[in-house]
Amino acid sequence: MNTTQQQLAEGILFTDEYQFTMAQMYYRLGLHEKPAQFDYFFRDYPDYGAHKAGYCIAAGLEWLLDWMQEARFRPAELDCLRSQTGRAGTPVFSADFIGWLEKNGNFDGLSMRAIPEGRVVHPNVPLAVVTGPLAAGQMLETSLLNHLNYQTLIATKAARIRESGRGQLIIEFGARRGHGKGVTAGARAALIGGADFSSNVGISHALGLAPKGTHAHSMVQAFLALGMTELDAFRAFAETYPDDCILLVDTIDTLGSGIPNAIKVFEELKRRGHTPIGIRLDSGDLAHLSIRAARMMDEAGFPDTTIVLSNELDELSIWQILTQIGQEAARNGLDADRLIRRLAYGVGTRLVTSAGDSALNGVYKLVALRRESRWVPAMKLSDSPSKIPNPGDKRAWRLYDRRGKATADLLSAKDEVPADQPKIVLRHMTESNLKRSLVPKDLLKIEPLLIDVCREGRTVLASPSIEQIRALRQSDMERLDPGVKRLMNPHIYHVSLTEKVWQVKQKMIASMRSGLPGKAHR
Amino acid sequence: MNTTQQQLAEGILFTDEYQFTMAQMYYRLGLHEKPAQFDYFFRDYPDYGAHKAGYCIAAGLEWLLDWMQEARFRPAELDCLRSQTGRAGTPVFSADFIGWLEKNGNFDGLSMRAIPEGRVVHPNVPLAVVTGPLAAGQMLETSLLNHLNYQTLIATKAARIRESGRGQLIIEFGARRGHGKGVTAGARAALIGGADFSSNVGISHALGLAPKGTHAHSMVQAFLALGMTELDAFRAFAETYPDDCILLVDTIDTLGSGIPNAIKVFEELKRRGHTPIGIRLDSGDLAHLSIRAARMMDEAGFPDTTIVLSNELDELSIWQILTQIGQEAARNGLDADRLIRRLAYGVGTRLVTSAGDSALNGVYKLVALRRESRWVPAMKLSDSPSKIPNPGDKRAWRLYDRRGKATADLLSAKDEVPADQPKIVLRHMTESNLKRSLVPKDLLKIEPLLIDVCREGRTVLASPSIEQIRALRQSDMERLDPGVKRLMNPHIYHVSLTEKVWQVKQKMIASMRSGLPGKAHR
Repeated sequence: MNTTQQQLAEGILFTDEYQFTMAQMYYRLGLHEKPAQFDYFFRDYPDYGAHKAGYCIAAGLEWLLDWMQEARFRPAELDCLRSQTGRAGTPVFSADFIGWLEKNGNFDGLSMRAIPEGRVVHPNVPLAVVTGPLAAGQMLETSLLNHLNYQTLIATKAARIRESGRGQLIIEFGARRGHGKGVTAGARAALIGGADFSSNVGISHALGLAPKGTHAHSMVQAFLALGMTELDAFRAFAETYPDDCILLVDTIDTLGSGIPNAIKVFEELKRRGHTPIGIRLDSGDLAHLSIRAARMMDEAGFPDTTIVLSNELDELSIWQILTQIGQEAARNGLDADRLIRRLAYGVGTRLVTSAGDSALNGVYKLVALRRESRWVPAMKLSDSPSKIPNPGDKRAWRLYDRRGKATADLLSAKDEVPADQPKIVLRHMTESNLKRSLVPKDLLKIEPLLIDVCREGRTVLASPSIEQIRALRQSDMERLDPGVKRLMNPHIYHVSLTEKVWQVKQKMIASMRSGLPGKAHR
Repeated sequence: MNTTQQQLAEGILFTDEYQFTMAQMYYRLGLHEKPAQFDYFFRDYPDYGAHKAGYCIAAGLEWLLDWMQEARFRPAELDCLRSQTGRAGTPVFSADFIGWLEKNGNFDGLSMRAIPEGRVVHPNVPLAVVTGPLAAGQMLETSLLNHLNYQTLIATKAARIRESGRGQLIIEFGARRGHGKGVTAGARAALIGGADFSSNVGISHALGLAPKGTHAHSMVQAFLALGMTELDAFRAFAETYPDDCILLVDTIDTLGSGIPNAIKVFEELKRRGHTPIGIRLDSGDLAHLSIRAARMMDEAGFPDTTIVLSNELDELSIWQILTQIGQEAARNGLDADRLIRRLAYGVGTRLVTSAGDSALNGVYKLVALRRESRWVPAMKLSDSPSKIPNPGDKRAWRLYDRRGKATADLLSAKDEVPADQPKIVLRHMTESNLKRSLVPKDLLKIEPLLIDVCREGRTVLASPSIEQIRALRQSDMERLDPGVKRLMNPHIYHVSLTEKVWQVKQKMIASMRSGLPGKAHR
């Protein structure tokens, strides 16, 4: 892909063809500027097969807003649309519509409320609500979904990996096997969700963070091919980076060669007044090798060196490693907790591709349209009740119990303020007989989740730093019930509707099913 | 991500930190310009859990070469490296090394042989062989892996989906849930591997193809919210696109409303002299609904309309749909084969994320280094024999049997020409007792697989069009044994070593294990 191709592929044409054909139809009918509202939400937590998430971490918003600011119809884009012909050989897009796009085909008329990046989020709660002209709102769909689905997916995986690793240092290593240039978004999301650093140089600098790394097997191989030894390679590396020395010990034989050679080099560093950082293990039984490595380094007088683990790690393999260390460390004369606190993790492929569930099923649904002077809720039926979106302009609230733990998210109508109600009824999303009620005084806090991030095309969200986003995540994670954070079979967090939203939804379902107001059966 | 961040993230810093720290160490030792050779290959076919590929389709090369041409150290990149400090607070990269990078930190010294895009490829065969200065070859690693791993993964998935769909039309729909901007690479790979079109506007135009699409549920919802009907929506769409009319029929009720309304609109189009294209089904039992839809449209006099299926499709779900149609069509008075030839597929998420196995395990290994005037093979040991790379400068050949079917890929030493040998011995990659021999006259053809694509930084591969790449794929697929193409439990294609490569490898393993020339145990 050369620069010209890239600009075309990633600018305002970074969308699906049907967005433009629908926009043109709306234009033709004079509906293109009708005020409309779209909700972005995901339907289910990622399900990795053997395990499933009980929460997600929102991410991707800032990059979406940046894209909206920069995406514009230039002559090149307009020429593309002009060049399209239909089956009859005539242009797909007419000159007047293309003229309209040239002037109005950007996102200047759209406003957005959204849940900030880094926050814990749950299914069916709108993470972004877009309001503005129907055609513009429609044309935004694909890019919005692309930006928010992927980063939320990866921030979630990173949070799980961090939980599994008990908060030890995590470095994102995924550039080599992630999905094309998407790995830059993946690295950012990983850094938001749970990784401390990334090995990816470009994106780290773009985000104001330091990239991190060790060295590759090829370095030791090169020395061997030149008639030198692993020890020579380690010495050369330590010579170049005496205060930042992490040695990869599994090119030849981890226990027989790599660790003994690393220890020799660490001793030399120590004599010269430097403190070696540690070693990296990239193959074999990482739990067993960690124990053996820790013992060898303890005995050599390096009890504080770090052991970086890598090789297809994810939350389950880290969990397995820590469980095995817990069971075997004492038998080897080591304190398991102490060893675990020496570990760091390089996590790549399975993090940035969200192995096990490689996509978040986020959708972007029309929920309301202005008809004359009032907003009319919009909806779509489905044979599966959980797939029927919640219609209308809604507000999203998080309810905290007296312990300060989040107990439910609640979707209300836009004019409802749960804190002002004597009793808050929480309706299950689809089951009419499942409801509970709470009184506001039993709650520590009722917090609105959506904030204004864009007003008529102008970003009003001050770009938070990665550190600030992480602080939000950390604070939300602490207020999440441990059962919801479980790696496997998490407790299901409640997302509920107010009585009013429930009633509107049921009325619309009944009316559509009876053929009204759709009147499709008439 | 704004433009400045993007340029930083996607340029020459699109790599892992350790590539630069290793390069600096080589520079410090005067090894940075030692001629080196690296092989890129993958170790296993994608394994989707319930099923596994028996072949891959190479893709990504052209975009890698474009990246190599454009990636350069600009002041911004050099400033990033300059700004890095180590644990002791001193700069990680010295001024002299940064000066060297500024002048020499590009890929102008590298040459590459590769297997062209679109070709069927197998594990352990080098898909790309990079030769040139050690530091430059090392710094290329991450980006090369990123470009080739992902596109090969997706081209492979697309080929499987095409096989499963029996060659019917496939449209790539993945932009909304794929991995960030990686979806442009994913769309390209899908178009190489098996998709006919993409819904993604930008990348389609960038590749010179027409984007395709239908319409969304939101279009029908908008009409309903405005007090109109599904029929009104369909009519308006047909009015705008009379010769390109595909109607999405499941917003309210597929059989009760969507299809009857679509038929009404098709009749109106027909009266006005237009030929409707068809309908799209996006939910429910797609096999059953296809049969019912086909009957309804047949009875209404539209036996040639297309039925586009979508909704989380992949090779297995398409296989299931076609199997079910095969079993149920006749009972419903339809010819199954005729119905299957009416189908087209919109395939999104599961295609561009390669659901089930979201990464190709491709690696980039140092295989040789020049020492004085001769090349010395390099290798890395592993406890798992299949992970020990094949050392040295090799050639890759494909052997075709008398039927013209590919029977094995063979890795030879660079000076071996299998066709000139009286008997070709094919050694198993790891098992010493598995070998077979062939005589060249029993083979239809012995074909070299690697071609020159880049000489000293200059691309010498004429960029083939997507159509040309597809023709290569098609021709390779036809020469693949049907057993190898099976969706589940495919026959294992043979990838073998010549006796000479086998002997070199065994000698190196023995020598490294005995501590020579590594001498790590001395």
